[in-house]
Amino acid sequence: MLPPLIAVDWGTSALRGARLDDAGKVLEEKSAPLGILNVPNGDFAGVFAAQFSAWMKPGMHCLISGMAGSRQGWAEAPYVACPAGPDELVRHLHWIERDRIALVPGLSDTRGEVPDVMRGEEVQIFGAMRLAGFAEGLFVLPGTHSKWATVRAGRVTGFRTYMTGEVYGLFGKHSILARTMDADAAFDEAAFRRGVARAGNGEGILHNAFGVRALALFDRLSAPESASYLSGLLIGEEIGHQALPPGGEVMVIGASALVERYALALGERGVRVRRFGAEATWAGLMALWT
Amino acid sequence: MLPPLIAVDWGTSALRGARLDDAGKVLEEKSAPLGILNVPNGDFAGVFAAQFSAWMKPGMHCLISGMAGSRQGWAEAPYVACPAGPDELVRHLHWIERDRIALVPGLSDTRGEVPDVMRGEEVQIFGAMRLAGFAEGLFVLPGTHSKWATVRAGRVTGFRTYMTGEVYGLFGKHSILARTMDADAAFDEAAFRRGVARAGNGEGILHNAFGVRALALFDRLSAPESASYLSGLLIGEEIGHQALPPGGEVMVIGASALVERYALALGERGVRVRRFGAEATWAGLMALWT
Repeated sequence: MLPPLIAVDWGTSALRGARLDDAGKVLEEKSAPLGILNVPNGDFAGVFAAQFSAWMKPGMHCLISGMAGSRQGWAEAPYVACPAGPDELVRHLHWIERDRIALVPGLSDTRGEVPDVMRGEEVQIFGAMRLAGFAEGLFVLPGTHSKWATVRAGRVTGFRTYMTGEVYGLFGKHSILARTMDADAAFDEAAFRRGVARAGNGEGILHNAFGVRALALFDRLSAPESASYLSGLLIGEEIGHQALPPGGEVMVIGASALVERYALALGERGVRVRRFGAEATWAGLMALWT
Repeated sequence: MLPPLIAVDWGTSALRGARLDDAGKVLEEKSAPLGILNVPNGDFAGVFAAQFSAWMKPGMHCLISGMAGSRQGWAEAPYVACPAGPDELVRHLHWIERDRIALVPGLSDTRGEVPDVMRGEEVQIFGAMRLAGFAEGLFVLPGTHSKWATVRAGRVTGFRTYMTGEVYGLFGKHSILARTMDADAAFDEAAFRRGVARAGNGEGILHNAFGVRALALFDRLSAPESASYLSGLLIGEEIGHQALPPGGEVMVIGASALVERYALALGERGVRVRRFGAEATWAGLMALWT
């Protein structure tokens, strides 16, 4: 039996960890706003020790996924090219301390003329596969940079990134749309669905986003509705570029509020979703470990 | 013969004026960074007098196009719905001083479920028509909010806005792309063409923009190239949504550097352009006047 694992997800803005037993059950969790951009003096070893030394008893191991393995992180764990599964990631672990602390590499998709990259999402995908007990499918990981990944025979065969969440933030904070938008308004499902439907006109987000402004000028979209409508436009645009399995299923991994928005928008296209949350990360690191 | 005209283009960031003779020839021009957002205490009358009282001799008339006629401007000249030509605009001039100073209304396109609006561009379109001596065609006015307008029998029958220029600024200033982009770099035609070609993949700007980041991570796009490449992605995306006249011609009205980018991108699609600059505004106000 394998010794138990400390699983760590060290991203851009947050540092989260879990102490797992030898079956992968979460015994304890912790998190801190110490993402790689907030590590004082680049002292990753110091932050790691302060957070996790109490857990790192002799014989314990730690796997770290996410941006900590990027060029701006603790150390660079170069991208592993698709197709890749847990085996390929394990073979390319970057050991900070031999047999004790390792960084999980991200994935690259270099099939086309323009490459694509992910760091951390690959672990969530393998975790969702482990939790659900399957090895095929279309996965989406919504967020600042949404990832759409195809899995065949337990390996990610390719993926694409969409700047959907980041563009939502840019429009809501810095664009002309911000003038007539209440970015803090509660989610409005009707306005969101209206945006998703509008995105289906095929005229593209550069045009459709201006509609937020024009509708407001004509008093046909309120400030609280605008944020949900824009979210629908953007998520609808992202989904509009996917080859969806007709009547099939998409695995959605992420924070629950965002997962529900994707479930709504995919439902409009006749696609069901299976939902996964933070547990996918711990299950993914456990999958690498076993 | 009509008395001569003072033609004014009062936009968001700039105030420009021209004194025209009775044939529409420009006798004198001036401009100031006194766009409607920079009018102290909303004193539009005061700013107008300070700039143009020397020109406004008894019997002189002044037509003002642009955002000065918006809700945030000097007074609101409500949008005139398409289809509309110079006659419709003249019928709906908003007189600040009877028979002396008037605001030209903007246009709205309310054919679809979501309206669209322009203010100022309609005058440039009518000016280009007057300068070139035709009354039909597809017009593009590139900028912060690019406008694509269709003209039939001398009237704008419909148009659509694209937030291309604004999104370029958002990406270059506030997004993750800014980290690897030199937004002040000189225009790089090869990188621009590469971006235009990439936009033709039909995967949408939310995905293709992330390619700027990924290419930089793989050292396949330099910081100075990135700005022109992103510009090509965005302009290519905008043009990709147009029904272009095959082998035909598009009228491009705007600042010359931007007009040349559109000429390059449209050239890739086998479309020729006719170029118009600031003179289109004065010709358009003259067209309303005569």
